[in-house]
Amino acid sequence: METQVILISGVAGIIALLYAVVATGKIKAFEVTNEKVLELSSIIQRGAMAFLSREYKALVPFVVVVAAILGYKIGFASAVSFLLGALCSALAGFIGMRVATGANGKTAFAASKGVNPALRIAFMGGTVMGMSVVGIGIIGILVCYYLYGDPAVITGFGFGASSIALFARVGGGIYTKAADVGADLVGKVEAGIPEDDPRNPAVIADNVGDNVGDIAGMGADLFESYVNSIIAAMAIGIATFGSLGVAYPLLLAALGIVSAVIGTFFVRVKEGGDPQVALRKGTLVTGILIIAGSYFLTQKMFDDITLFWAVTAGVAVGVIIGLVTEIYTSSSFNPVKQIAASSETGTATNILAGLGVGMKSTALPVLLICGAILVGVKFGGLFGIACAAVGMLSITGMTLSVDAYGPISDNAGGIAEMSHMPPEVRKITDRLDAVGNTTAAIGKGLAIGSAALTALALFAAYATAVGLESIDLNDPKVMVGLFIGGMLPFLFSAMTIQAVGRAASKMIDEVRRQFREVPGILEGTGQPEYEKCIDISTAASLKEMIVPGLLAVICPVVVGMVLGAEALGGLLGGAIVTGVMMAIFMSNAGGAWDNAKKFIEEGHHGGKGSGAHAAAVVGDTVGDPFKDTAGPSLNILIKLMSVVALVLAPLF
Amino acid sequence: METQVILISGVAGIIALLYAVVATGKIKAFEVTNEKVLELSSIIQRGAMAFLSREYKALVPFVVVVAAILGYKIGFASAVSFLLGALCSALAGFIGMRVATGANGKTAFAASKGVNPALRIAFMGGTVMGMSVVGIGIIGILVCYYLYGDPAVITGFGFGASSIALFARVGGGIYTKAADVGADLVGKVEAGIPEDDPRNPAVIADNVGDNVGDIAGMGADLFESYVNSIIAAMAIGIATFGSLGVAYPLLLAALGIVSAVIGTFFVRVKEGGDPQVALRKGTLVTGILIIAGSYFLTQKMFDDITLFWAVTAGVAVGVIIGLVTEIYTSSSFNPVKQIAASSETGTATNILAGLGVGMKSTALPVLLICGAILVGVKFGGLFGIACAAVGMLSITGMTLSVDAYGPISDNAGGIAEMSHMPPEVRKITDRLDAVGNTTAAIGKGLAIGSAALTALALFAAYATAVGLESIDLNDPKVMVGLFIGGMLPFLFSAMTIQAVGRAASKMIDEVRRQFREVPGILEGTGQPEYEKCIDISTAASLKEMIVPGLLAVICPVVVGMVLGAEALGGLLGGAIVTGVMMAIFMSNAGGAWDNAKKFIEEGHHGGKGSGAHAAAVVGDTVGDPFKDTAGPSLNILIKLMSVVALVLAPLF
Repeated sequence: METQVILISGVAGIIALLYAVVATGKIKAFEVTNEKVLELSSIIQRGAMAFLSREYKALVPFVVVVAAILGYKIGFASAVSFLLGALCSALAGFIGMRVATGANGKTAFAASKGVNPALRIAFMGGTVMGMSVVGIGIIGILVCYYLYGDPAVITGFGFGASSIALFARVGGGIYTKAADVGADLVGKVEAGIPEDDPRNPAVIADNVGDNVGDIAGMGADLFESYVNSIIAAMAIGIATFGSLGVAYPLLLAALGIVSAVIGTFFVRVKEGGDPQVALRKGTLVTGILIIAGSYFLTQKMFDDITLFWAVTAGVAVGVIIGLVTEIYTSSSFNPVKQIAASSETGTATNILAGLGVGMKSTALPVLLICGAILVGVKFGGLFGIACAAVGMLSITGMTLSVDAYGPISDNAGGIAEMSHMPPEVRKITDRLDAVGNTTAAIGKGLAIGSAALTALALFAAYATAVGLESIDLNDPKVMVGLFIGGMLPFLFSAMTIQAVGRAASKMIDEVRRQFREVPGILEGTGQPEYEKCIDISTAASLKEMIVPGLLAVICPVVVGMVLGAEALGGLLGGAIVTGVMMAIFMSNAGGAWDNAKKFIEEGHHGGKGSGAHAAAVVGDTVGDPFKDTAGPSLNILIKLMSVVALVLAPLF
Repeated sequence: METQVILISGVAGIIALLYAVVATGKIKAFEVTNEKVLELSSIIQRGAMAFLSREYKALVPFVVVVAAILGYKIGFASAVSFLLGALCSALAGFIGMRVATGANGKTAFAASKGVNPALRIAFMGGTVMGMSVVGIGIIGILVCYYLYGDPAVITGFGFGASSIALFARVGGGIYTKAADVGADLVGKVEAGIPEDDPRNPAVIADNVGDNVGDIAGMGADLFESYVNSIIAAMAIGIATFGSLGVAYPLLLAALGIVSAVIGTFFVRVKEGGDPQVALRKGTLVTGILIIAGSYFLTQKMFDDITLFWAVTAGVAVGVIIGLVTEIYTSSSFNPVKQIAASSETGTATNILAGLGVGMKSTALPVLLICGAILVGVKFGGLFGIACAAVGMLSITGMTLSVDAYGPISDNAGGIAEMSHMPPEVRKITDRLDAVGNTTAAIGKGLAIGSAALTALALFAAYATAVGLESIDLNDPKVMVGLFIGGMLPFLFSAMTIQAVGRAASKMIDEVRRQFREVPGILEGTGQPEYEKCIDISTAASLKEMIVPGLLAVICPVVVGMVLGAEALGGLLGGAIVTGVMMAIFMSNAGGAWDNAKKFIEEGHHGGKGSGAHAAAVVGDTVGDPFKDTAGPSLNILIKLMSVVALVLAPLF
């Protein structure tokens, strides 16, 4: 059976990669005749790829040292898996970014022909990222499994993927927000020029940042959630069901890939149609196929459908968390409306309202995650939880395509603006972008939910691997671990938020300097020095990502060494709990502030230029590092610490 | 030995109460001849006492219902203990508030004679609160112990104290911040009149709020920390050391009372001296006496000084957490200076800097708490942790006196301003008030640290009471409990922050209305309707405290009933961890914003009226409900949930 499983999942992985190749070819074949568009797109692409290669280079010493330690302490196989995981994550990020930054200008140009061509190019760009992630992910796991045949060794692959993901998320998050805040505060607020105005020297860095943060960062994040959920399920599965327990998550993942490929064909819109509906249809089709397929798969493999319910719970909770996220972050619902209304009494009440909404928004997702845990356990014990996580993530090929579509449309809008294309074009890209904002919120909800379940599955795998009979909260050492673990997400968030602040202030100084010193810049006759701003964001984010990244790797090791394996278990528990809360709190508060501002800009509470609008702009700026740097980084933090513990389990 | 212990601790309690009586007499004997001062003080006192009696009345149904349920489900004795605990807490609050609101005007008047007379009256007013709390606390425990002789029953006393404390903290916190925000936003910002200006209709409500929040609220908070630390130690102690384990915490508490009484005699300042030094000397003397005394006490009782180290760790960590709090919240150190500097780039950077400082400030206190846990365990197992908590809280008589001194000086300043006393008087009260701000930060640090240790001790007592062999994080139900528990502090904070927002907006509307409708109000010829504002704060806070209060009591019960005793253990663990983090985060962020604003007002970064100042004012306003409502309420939330679990342990 084993070879059969490897074959089937391998074929699914290859299908995903072929899909990505074909999509890339189609995007390349689409011709753009607007010189300015080509030029802007290529500047953005160069900036993004330069950042990515400098980031990867900066990580080489880290990767080599960790691999050496693994090889020396745990074994050669783990070191190889780790290297492979890091490489695969980097590769997926590289491919996805390259294509996405090639698709933005083409989307802008296609928008001059209508909604459907633009949607198709943008979405196709997104699918390259989505399909690369799942394809490379599953093939990487299979290679490790084929080489070593031991799920314990494959955890090294997850560790490699996690490390790259953390640095990518933190670095990307700092990059994008430094550029964004710098461009906004000096350009929009001080100089009074509009968003995406080519006279703003930070505008290209801002567009690069969208790719670096929302495409490479999000891709690395979901890559590692994806592979780690499968790895955790394999590690627990082999202990409970033997080789069947290894095969099941792999085949579920394969099923997810095929379903996602089919789903993408449903993302089409007629002229005058709603792109939102098209994207939703694609996701819905994928989800239904996965649920239906997993019913037959489970029945066939186990002669019994019990585990099917665990998988379904995972898929369902993933979708519902996304919808709940929308309730708290979309201006169609009360929370965002209340933030907008409270902006009328000033900035302080806007901030307090946003913080309140963010905190309150933790309740439902947590209850949903708890629901998934309880259903998973009821229908399959710890393996059930892991299968719920795999189920939730099997849809990744589709959701990530939709996610990556967002920043491509956003970039397309910027390029349309900067190359002075007609307003109808900008209207279409704006419409695509607005849809992207909603899907981003849903994607973020799914990312958090899956991070929580994956971290829990890794946690369970860790406890199994160390052979801990219990991680007893009555043991004061466990409680100490719980406290330290609970504190880390706060410390980590503080670091990333302060890093954005420092990087942004450098950007502010540079933009101010250019406005002052470059002749004719504000009149549109002088050429802004875009590269200087790109350099600042790049250098600052590479520098600032190091300390928080190392913190995440070193803390579990130190606690495990000094206080023992049980205390490390406590640390993971504490980190997962506060990490999930803080991630939800910050992501949703940021999203809500953002949309409250947009709601006011649509003309409510006095509209643009009113006091309420000024207050809402501040809220939006506070929310930026919340939702795009600190919040999403926590998803990875909790998984990385769990997988570090799992890989190093033999040491404790 | 038992009678002897009861006798000794009882005498210590009576000494504390006698001290309070004498201090009250001295304050009463101090004559004030300024009519305006007398009038203002009496309005504030009426408002405060009216709030307190309405609050207590509102709680009668809750107390009766809970007592009935306890009597029916657990036993008559627990019901009686519960009622006694609630009564004692209310009584201590009542006495402390009455005297404190009588001392504020006298402090203002005394300030016209010099620093020392003013300090003496203000501090004496504080000692009445401090001594009442420890005196009534220990006597209440002794009565229960004398009546029933069973530490398990006395937990009901702690439950009663906790319930009142939660409502007092939440209600008081909402009251004071609604009045404060309302007075500031309309009076200072919109109408441009100074702080404490008698033309502001909300100014009296603001002064009442200082008492309601910082005296009654803080008093109830420390009352319940104090009694619950002793009760938890007794409950664990009887299981490990028999009657010796019951006697030890009681005698430690008695030692603390006597030490505090002696310490108060060192709080004196010569004309031209520094009140800060005087207060610090008093605290230092008390701490040294407790440490020295506990050495001999431990040696005599156990023929061995092992437990002495646990107690000392508690005292030391309590003091050090206070100092760390100062680092993050005082403008003498970098964090506050950075917030002030970041105000120059606008409101958003000020807010982000404050949030970052608050999050970062969790690290050291958590490590210190972990240190206290580990030392406690090393030198006495779970009983050692409980003794560390008792040690930390044995100093309560002194610290609470110092704490309560703050709002009295603050009020005195307001009264001096409103009654147009000469500027030298205001200068003296300002100086006393500034010292009060520092001591308040230290007191808050101690309150959080002691809350964490007390909650942990209660948690351990709960696990012992239910006879749980382990609360195993590998058990998914425990993990679900951990998640739900971890979420509650976020939900709770959201509720209290939003409640302040709602109450404040009612206050804003009322103050605006009076400025518009009352003739001559801004010229100083019309009489503002102070009572209307007092009514609004009172009604709003009584209404808004109900839901969060009930949430705290009901959640542990529901989880215990539905998911079982282990899951309830997980819930407590999760709530304690995120509760402590959020409490530190919010209290310190609030304190830091407050002092960053004051730092700018001293003339840095452009001083009053600059853009940086405007940004800092927003930060301060955001910080108000953080540090005075949501943050401190969490201290009680975690203890209340733990004590609910402990009392209802027989049901699960």
